[in-house]
Order: sequence, then C-alpha cells, then structure tokens
Amino acid sequence: LAVYAQTVVKPFAELALIDQIRATQAARMRRAGKRARANSPAGLILGIGDDCAVLRPPPGHEVLVTTDFTLEGRHFLRKLHPPESVGHRVLACGLSDLAAMGAKPLAGFLSLALSADLVADRKGRDWLARFFAGFNALAHTHSVPLAGGDTSESPSDHILADIVLLGSAPKGRALRRSTARSGDVLYVTGALGGSAAELASLQQRGKLSTVRLVPSQIDPNLRPHLYPQPRLGVGKALLRRRLATACIDLSDGLSTDLAHLCHESDLGAEIAANALPIHPLAARTADPLLLALHGGEDYELLFAAPPSARIPRSIAGVSIARVGTLTRRKAITLMDAHGQRKPLIAAGWEHFTRAR
Amino acid sequence: LAVYAQTVVKPFAELALIDQIRATQAARMRRAGKRARANSPAGLILGIGDDCAVLRPPPGHEVLVTTDFTLEGRHFLRKLHPPESVGHRVLACGLSDLAAMGAKPLAGFLSLALSADLVADRKGRDWLARFFAGFNALAHTHSVPLAGGDTSESPSDHILADIVLLGSAPKGRALRRSTARSGDVLYVTGALGGSAAELASLQQRGKLSTVRLVPSQIDPNLRPHLYPQPRLGVGKALLRRRLATACIDLSDGLSTDLAHLCHESDLGAEIAANALPIHPLAARTADPLLLALHGGEDYELLFAAPPSARIPRSIAGVSIARVGTLTRRKAITLMDAHGQRKPLIAAGWEHFTRAR
Repeated sequence: LAVYAQTVVKPFAELALIDQIRATQAARMRRAGKRARANSPAGLILGIGDDCAVLRPPPGHEVLVTTDFTLEGRHFLRKLHPPESVGHRVLACGLSDLAAMGAKPLAGFLSLALSADLVADRKGRDWLARFFAGFNALAHTHSVPLAGGDTSESPSDHILADIVLLGSAPKGRALRRSTARSGDVLYVTGALGGSAAELASLQQRGKLSTVRLVPSQIDPNLRPHLYPQPRLGVGKALLRRRLATACIDLSDGLSTDLAHLCHESDLGAEIAANALPIHPLAARTADPLLLALHGGEDYELLFAAPPSARIPRSIAGVSIARVGTLTRRKAITLMDAHGQRKPLIAAGWEHFTRAR
Repeated sequence: LAVYAQTVVKPFAELALIDQIRATQAARMRRAGKRARANSPAGLILGIGDDCAVLRPPPGHEVLVTTDFTLEGRHFLRKLHPPESVGHRVLACGLSDLAAMGAKPLAGFLSLALSADLVADRKGRDWLARFFAGFNALAHTHSVPLAGGDTSESPSDHILADIVLLGSAPKGRALRRSTARSGDVLYVTGALGGSAAELASLQQRGKLSTVRLVPSQIDPNLRPHLYPQPRLGVGKALLRRRLATACIDLSDGLSTDLAHLCHESDLGAEIAANALPIHPLAARTADPLLLALHGGEDYELLFAAPPSARIPRSIAGVSIARVGTLTRRKAITLMDAHGQRKPLIAAGWEHFTRAR
C-alpha cells in the first residue's frame, strides 16, 4: 500500500479505514494460513503483511490463475446492486473461471479502489461492510482464503475491483477449451437466461439496493443475477471422473462462449433450441431464447464429452442438459423448434452504458 | 472478456482494439509458453485463450503472488508521464515486491481498463502502443511472460491498471519482513530520494509526455522516477547466499517501509542520517534527507543481516550501504549529522491529488 499524504505527516482518514479493512482481512487470512499449514503441506503459507503472499500448491498439481475486473458503471450499478451482491459477484466470476477448468481454489487476491464518499461517512462504510459480507460468505462456502491484494482511493467516483484467484489441478489435467473433438456431445449445467431476466426485472423495478439481502438466506435459483453460483463441484467432478474433453464457463452468453470453445478447438457446432435448459425467470419473458443464447453472466458450464460417455442427469447436485454436438465443419448453427437451421451469431449484451 | 454490446449484434470498435491487444499478447505469450515447455518442466504451461492460465512452479518451490494498482490520477498523470514510463512502472512495482522476497518471476497478469479516448482515435492507440513498449521492454529484461489479465472500458476517463505477478522461491526460503533479529545490521541497495527528486523536477518543468523515450536507451540512474529498476538480482543473491535475515522493498519510502519491517519483526531501529546513500538528483535539492527518508518509489531494497555476516559492497552490480541497526527497543530513531537522536516518523508523500 503506497502511503500518499499531501504533507509529510498528514493524518489520512481514508488510509486508516483501508488499514482497518486490511487488518480484518489479515486476521482472517492468518487464521486460514494457520489452518492450511496445520492441515496439509499445501495451501497458503504467508498472506497479507509482507511484500508477496506465499502459496504451496499440492504435490503433483499445477497452479491456475484468473483475473477479473468488476468496475462500477460497467459491471454493476450502486443504485441497482445491493453491496452484498457486488461482493458476491466479484468473487463469483473468478471462481467460475476456476470451475471451468476443474480447479480447486487456493487463494484470492482482491484489489479495491474506493471512491471518496465510501470512506467519508457512515453510509459509505456501511456499504463496504455489506460488500465484504457478500464477498466473505461466498469465500467461506468455497474455502477461499483472501491472501492479499491492493487498496487505493479511486481517481473517480467509481468503485473499482479486480479479483485474482489461484487454484490448483493435477498436472496436465485442467479442463481446457481447446481439446474438444469432432462428434463430441455438448452439455450445459443448470439453466440459462436467468441472470439477464432477473437483471431486466431489477432495472424495471428500479432502485433495489436498500433491500437488505442476507446471502446465506438467498435461494440462488431465484437470484441468478445478484447471486450466481459458480459450478466448482461440477468442474471438479468432470476433471476427477474424466468425463469432459473440453469445458468453458458461460460468462459472456452461450453464443459467445460456444464460439470461443469452437474457435480454440478448431471445430463448429450445432445447437438445438428445443434442448436448451431455460431458467424459469427467462421463461416468463417475451423472448426466453434470446436471453438463454445471448444474455450472459449465467456462470453455468458448457462442456463437451464423447458420444460414448455416460453423462449423468445431474452432477454435484446440478442438472445437466444435452444441447448439441461439435462438428468438423466450422459453422455454428442453431436448429429452431421447426427443425430449421440458421447461423448462430456470437453476440453479447451491454447491460450498462456510461453517460458521455 | 465480457462482451457487452448495446444491441445484440452491435459492432464494437473498442472491443476490436482490445482483442487486438490480446492477440498480440497472446502470440507473445504462446511463444513464451512454448519456450517454457521446451526448456524446463517449470514455467507457463497455458496462457491467454482459456478461462485460466496454468503455471508449473519449479519442483521444491513455492509460489509468490503480488498485486498492485496503477491508477491514472493517483499513481501517474498522463500529462507528466510518458506512456513508456507508465507501462514500465506498472510492471516495476510488482517486480520489486518479488525482488524483496528473493523470488524469480514466473508470469505476469495485466488487467487494463481503457478510457474511451484511448480506443477512439490514432493518438489514443499510439499511447497504448507506447505503454506496451515500456511494459514489454521491462518484461523482456526480466523474462516475465504476460500470461493473462482482463480488459474493460474504464467507467471514467481514467486509465486503470492492476498488475499481478507470480514468482517462485525454494520452499521456506522466501525473504520476509518478519524474520529480522535484534542486533542485525540494516542495509540499503542503490541510492535514495532520486524518484521524488526527479518527479519534483518533472512537475516544475511541466509537460513531458511528448518527449519520446526509448526505454532500452535510458540510463535508469538518471531516470529513477520514470524508469525505476526493480532489484531482482540483489534479492535472488540475498536468498541464494543466505545473506539476509529479512527484507522489504522501498516503495513507500524508507521511514514507512522500515516501520513495516520493524513492526513485522517486533523490533525497533536506529538509522544514521550520514550513512544514507543519497541519489545525485536528490543531493541537488534543498532537502536531500527529506526525499531519502520519505520520498518513496525508489524501489530499492532494505534488508537486515547479522553483524557477523560479510556483506559485499555491491551485489549483482548494485551498491550496498550500511544504514543502521535493529534494536530490541521498539522505537525507530534517526541519528542526525550532529549525533542527535530523534524519533523517525513514518510518513509518505502524496504526489498527486484529485480535484473534488
């Protein structure tokens, strides 16, 4: 933490608060670190309080790394997202990347730039406390120690977060996007379009952040946008049981992420609209298929498996749906309800735009 | 990369540019990854193009992680810092953290949020190209493959960067802040106060960013603020030759970082003002001692060694100065040129403030 003070000995209220956050997290981390040292030769050896954190991956494992920005005005709106949801979502998008590769989380690093109003008054500090309640609840669920990060005052009025997650997977076994084969069957976990449907509903109803949501009491099936559930259990099972030839998480939407998987595996695909598992919230909207294909932020997994593989109907408590096949021909097509094939265009969805 | 488009098939010029950056980095990374795979069982196994990067630390090594924000308006000013310097500094602060623990860099992850003007026109794209020239030159010097990161449009007009560096050190051998012992002698690498002195001079002369500086042609001794040199060679030598009992990098200034080392080691210290190696640029200012003690961003190393240890006058080509001793008594004192002892207050320095 660079200590910037206008004069050499200026007392700096903002830094005092940031230090307090760090101290809380450091204590939590030290406990986690002690547990890790006590329980196993792997894990977090040294966390907040030195120049670097020190991690020891389990023997015979590789280290996986993913980083994701969560920027106010781009990825969330303070008037729409309760602080607990922002904290949850910051961590969830990183955990979903680990899930997609079948990895087990080792540690998280949170860099947080706070806007001046957040550190100036009680209301701001309350927002921060609720942010960490959401972050910590999900971290606890998946045993992710917070091992470090950086803090700063934001140069604008936007809260800026960057999450880094480290995970581990047995050497050479991490699930990839590039290893699918022609003829493989495509599967999707859970249901699609729920996140975009819930967000649309929130935007229609307007201000929601005053509603206090306790993460542990939330049914994620009803809150797929505010509290998406990273599919770590499914990813680990796919890796352990060698079920999948390739895997990707659905952060950008099925159409875009399928295109990534096809591109990296040098294949095409055919998807059946009828086969897509539509989230109940999306099913109630005017165009469920649009949301399921392009809505994004569902954080489900899309994976490929050989036609001969026996894929159970549910893995780690999450339903699995067969949605299509991979083809040698590079085109990606959607077969509609009438059996008509048309090109599936990879398209994302802009939820928020900035005023210019 | 979350694809956000206002309408489902909106072409998105910004994303095209970001993709181009990613593609350039991905190609560079793939080459680095191939080298890593070809040359050794350790290194970068998989980089940009999947949900996570995959790293294999050398056998018997631990993984070190550090993250640092570089935010426009807080850590740099576009009108003051040439883009090459911003790219260099983003990476240098992370490398300095690895140096402080004696680690060898494994891979870097750069998250970058770009302001709209940077992607809108040729001038902006030129800034970005020069940023990466500075970043890549330092990455090349220290063999740091860029293995991933995130890209986004900034929610404000500020460029936002977060650098994550992974390094490796032999198990249990990473240099720490907390392991100094009472009676140990304190040493500092290089010279102090140069960064603050150069910055003050830049601020007086005003606009400098139009001056094109080719990083490889720059004498870092003359550019300690724009092109600080992380002391990776010294850190590795201290670890390998078991010379230091504790170490920290001087990012916040000697007074603050010494306080961190003392706090973590549960000790006090006495520093001799006469013994401090003053940078030639600081020596020319009105108060060299102020800059050397509190200026910050010198990215030198402060380390402790037993009185019996023979510390060479230079390590890895960098001069080493003996500056004081660690004491059981918790106070941190400065002995001035007249032999007078006074408390040394840990104080940082605010270089830039935001308009509110």
